[in-house]
Amino acid sequence: MRATVMHSAGDVRIENVPDASLLAPTDALVRVTRACICGSDLWPYKTLEPTEAGRRMGHEFIGVVDAVGAEVATVKPGDLVVAPFAYSDGTCVFCHEGLHTSCIAGGFWGRDGVDGGQGEAVRVPLADGTLVVLPVSPDDALMPSLLTLSDVMGTGHHAAVSARVGPGRTAAVVGDGAVGLCGVIAARRLGAERIILLGRHPDRIALAKDFGATDIVSERGDEAIERVRELTGGLGAHSVLECVGLGQSTLTALGIARPGGTIGRVGLPQEPSIPHAAPSFYENVTIGGGVAPARAYIEELLPDVLSGAIEPGRVLDRTVDLDGVPDGYRAMDERDSIKVMVKP
Amino acid sequence: MRATVMHSAGDVRIENVPDASLLAPTDALVRVTRACICGSDLWPYKTLEPTEAGRRMGHEFIGVVDAVGAEVATVKPGDLVVAPFAYSDGTCVFCHEGLHTSCIAGGFWGRDGVDGGQGEAVRVPLADGTLVVLPVSPDDALMPSLLTLSDVMGTGHHAAVSARVGPGRTAAVVGDGAVGLCGVIAARRLGAERIILLGRHPDRIALAKDFGATDIVSERGDEAIERVRELTGGLGAHSVLECVGLGQSTLTALGIARPGGTIGRVGLPQEPSIPHAAPSFYENVTIGGGVAPARAYIEELLPDVLSGAIEPGRVLDRTVDLDGVPDGYRAMDERDSIKVMVKP
Repeated sequence: MRATVMHSAGDVRIENVPDASLLAPTDALVRVTRACICGSDLWPYKTLEPTEAGRRMGHEFIGVVDAVGAEVATVKPGDLVVAPFAYSDGTCVFCHEGLHTSCIAGGFWGRDGVDGGQGEAVRVPLADGTLVVLPVSPDDALMPSLLTLSDVMGTGHHAAVSARVGPGRTAAVVGDGAVGLCGVIAARRLGAERIILLGRHPDRIALAKDFGATDIVSERGDEAIERVRELTGGLGAHSVLECVGLGQSTLTALGIARPGGTIGRVGLPQEPSIPHAAPSFYENVTIGGGVAPARAYIEELLPDVLSGAIEPGRVLDRTVDLDGVPDGYRAMDERDSIKVMVKP
Repeated sequence: MRATVMHSAGDVRIENVPDASLLAPTDALVRVTRACICGSDLWPYKTLEPTEAGRRMGHEFIGVVDAVGAEVATVKPGDLVVAPFAYSDGTCVFCHEGLHTSCIAGGFWGRDGVDGGQGEAVRVPLADGTLVVLPVSPDDALMPSLLTLSDVMGTGHHAAVSARVGPGRTAAVVGDGAVGLCGVIAARRLGAERIILLGRHPDRIALAKDFGATDIVSERGDEAIERVRELTGGLGAHSVLECVGLGQSTLTALGIARPGGTIGRVGLPQEPSIPHAAPSFYENVTIGGGVAPARAYIEELLPDVLSGAIEPGRVLDRTVDLDGVPDGYRAMDERDSIKVMVKP
């Protein structure tokens, strides 16, 4: 079958790889009908050291079940399913606590002999715990929004939940990428009174306003901090959604949090430490969040996607076929595109 | 009047200073009957650069009100009162949220012309918001425990609250100082099923066991992490109370937190950044806490102190008069004493 392999920074290829097939009785074989390129795929796109085998890419996909192992009970051939960006058994102590990304038996796509999502098919381990059946047809107009349940909508929601967004609170979203934009959707959905987006790109800002952002801050660094403080009567935001992961964006998040406020960090950290965290000690700013347990949120978010109450699929502003994947990476890296959908 | 002045690292003197007196109509004048030396006083004791004026010391005290300003309504001359380690107006937005340490009008003892607690008397700004009347006589046997409401018991409680201690949860307390020991009391009081103390001093360990610690880990660094993981079935602790503030203790706290767990940090950070925080991102470990709003907790903790349900005063294992304060610093610095009470 054909799938996406990254060989080194900037070198993304579509290659023939071994066909996905059932290995364990808990596996499902899923023919991919939609996938995405993720902002987090851009980190290796910028930095991956060359390797002979390369890295299988993609961790967001929807597909049709082609076959299931003997122990799979909740999905059957013909079902349309969405997969979160980590697989999980749904039964361990952490899955029961809603932290499927820490599943003791779980793992991530494209590693350890597991296929990536940017290809024709995927062997899905722990299918019962991982997959969620979608009550629509594979070409339904809702595909883009349903696809965001794999990652970016769940991640934006996790940022908002971790940042304790709620009615009457002011939320600030650091980053206008797909996750930040989904963070705006999540903050509005959870009742934030005011939603400040920190971003600089006109197309993304327009989308953020549609999604519910009430204020835009396009300054950077200390000026951005000052501007958010002006907008909040000098106090800062109750809830800060950190959707970038750089040291600078973390500093901004810490700088705009209100005393007693909470940061929900979901941007993949590009530095090992949290800089300048001592001042936040004196203001009792909590730093929460992490890699989003997207699986935990699918059931909660799915009805709002199906009803059209939220439209996170609007962050997918370009569609490519498998051969178009390398150009999709380029487009996202050059910010020609917010997020790219793949139709294999 | 006589009061404690620190001139440089290791140089603590009892000196004549201007008498405390009412300056604002919201002030109270309090004659100090009990004060403490705090573990946090040891940081300047180790590092303070010499200054001509020196630094007035002490932020924990109980005393008798001698006089009040015209606008003071809640305390009157003759009342026995306890002061938290920060003064606050009790009326600002942050005080209403229970975050008195971020009070917009508030501040800290020994700075900006405000007296320190290790002296004969203190001018208390914002007396109505700051002071709490104690329904006992100044020489009641409960004085040590009541005095801990100024700081260490409230701080240990804040660590436990910030770390989300609750019934059925495993708490780990990093540090066997007075705050760590009060953290054990707080964790037990909040219903923790298991309380692991990380500490090495036999006298403190004995006290921790009396306070409710169920397990003791005396290893350090990676070995301590490994030991806590062994004790928790490989998972780590739900709630970690970081009661030291060093980089190493923070690393330990991060290393023993369970995925999805929470760290309540109350040790004054001695490094600007939080080291090694990226791994905690992948496990969704929340880093909460900060400088404790001790004022917010006095009403909640006072009944348990008065009833004897908790005995945090047992961390005060030495009593000195004002002249004995310099030796009290020495004793705490050399770990001859857990915490020193001052009877001016």
